[in-house]
Amino acid sequence: MADYELFYWPSIPGRGEFVRLIFEEADANYVDVARLPEAEAGGVAAIRAILESNHGQPPGFAVPVVRHGALVISQTPNICLYTARHLDLAPADEAGQLHANQLQLTIADVVTEAHDTHHPIAVDAYFEDQRDAAIRRGQFFSSVRLPKFLDYFEGALTATPAGHSLGESLSYVDLSLFHLMRGLEYAFPRAMARCRAEVPGLVALAERVAARPSIASYLASARRLGFNQHGIFRHYPELDAHE
Amino acid sequence: MADYELFYWPSIPGRGEFVRLIFEEADANYVDVARLPEAEAGGVAAIRAILESNHGQPPGFAVPVVRHGALVISQTPNICLYTARHLDLAPADEAGQLHANQLQLTIADVVTEAHDTHHPIAVDAYFEDQRDAAIRRGQFFSSVRLPKFLDYFEGALTATPAGHSLGESLSYVDLSLFHLMRGLEYAFPRAMARCRAEVPGLVALAERVAARPSIASYLASARRLGFNQHGIFRHYPELDAHE
Repeated sequence: MADYELFYWPSIPGRGEFVRLIFEEADANYVDVARLPEAEAGGVAAIRAILESNHGQPPGFAVPVVRHGALVISQTPNICLYTARHLDLAPADEAGQLHANQLQLTIADVVTEAHDTHHPIAVDAYFEDQRDAAIRRGQFFSSVRLPKFLDYFEGALTATPAGHSLGESLSYVDLSLFHLMRGLEYAFPRAMARCRAEVPGLVALAERVAARPSIASYLASARRLGFNQHGIFRHYPELDAHE
Repeated sequence: MADYELFYWPSIPGRGEFVRLIFEEADANYVDVARLPEAEAGGVAAIRAILESNHGQPPGFAVPVVRHGALVISQTPNICLYTARHLDLAPADEAGQLHANQLQLTIADVVTEAHDTHHPIAVDAYFEDQRDAAIRRGQFFSSVRLPKFLDYFEGALTATPAGHSLGESLSYVDLSLFHLMRGLEYAFPRAMARCRAEVPGLVALAERVAARPSIASYLASARRLGFNQHGIFRHYPELDAHE
């Protein structure tokens, strides 16, 4: 039996990818439960089941959910903090963990804003029914917010001489910044092309993460799900920064 | 000199209120720096200064920021986790802290969605310039998302016999749920009147928190800022659930 069970939508990288990258880098013994066939207790039914009963613990509002032994937890930055702490991908001291969590929560804010570019009105409604608002929000996000967030992370990176976001060692925040950069490049290629030269530290960090043996092997595997039009990061050219 | 320095906008409860409630309940020695006169190193200049230099630590993207000794941290749920842990308002064990953080992150999600009802397109633009989208998002939030979130928190509360969100003792999550309920009641009185009967545990919890001697004294003091049309929670009747 696997040490860690991840419950997340089986067809998108989404928020689950921040957790998958931690497991992959640490070579953890984990299973991506909803990607198993329903006959093996997988599929979307597994997601419904874990959200409906958390075995006496506070329920999850949404996936990702991770089960580790008796513990069941949700909320992506919370799962990342816990799993990274146990898999040696977080700073060992309290101050370091707080700063990691601070950066991770800011990454989560970017993810929410990137999602809301294609669903600015209602997460339950179709893109087509909120396309006009999406174009306005997408243009604002990709031309104002995205550069501001990247500039912030670049500042955090360049504050440490080793080029990691939290000093000497690779941490889960670096893995998450890699995923954030790739997601933004998929969804907003024009905005990202324009920003690239301003954030050389982030660009280099993403390359270094992608080249790590564990991550390179994961990215080449069938376990890695491609970005697509059902996830957090979606490519609609009309939402991407124009001139 | 104060043990804790809070840096937050001096004219709104906003996200800073989640931190203020922890300090007030714990009777911590804190100062709300930006509410001091500029002549005493307060005012908005203090916010600019703390965001521009975090003394070698990762910078903050936005306020609230808290300084405690040499440590400077930002992101509301991160500040709450840290301060509550040090002020005996968080569970003592790791699992309890993870569950507290999980609930607090979900509260933060509601706060972001409540904010985005009045700024669905661009945080930098006027309400009037995004009013049509605001009405659509506000109606969706107040009639669909708000009841769904409250139902979730009610479920978390009723899972524990003591009527706190995390078992036997009051925690910072209970203080935050109080503020969330009050903010939603200010912004969406019709939606909240409709939900009230469905979430008796939450309603009772908010009353109990308000009646605690430390909190009652705070609420009656000049330190407590009222809800207003510049904060996270704003009352626009056209955004509140209609029939």
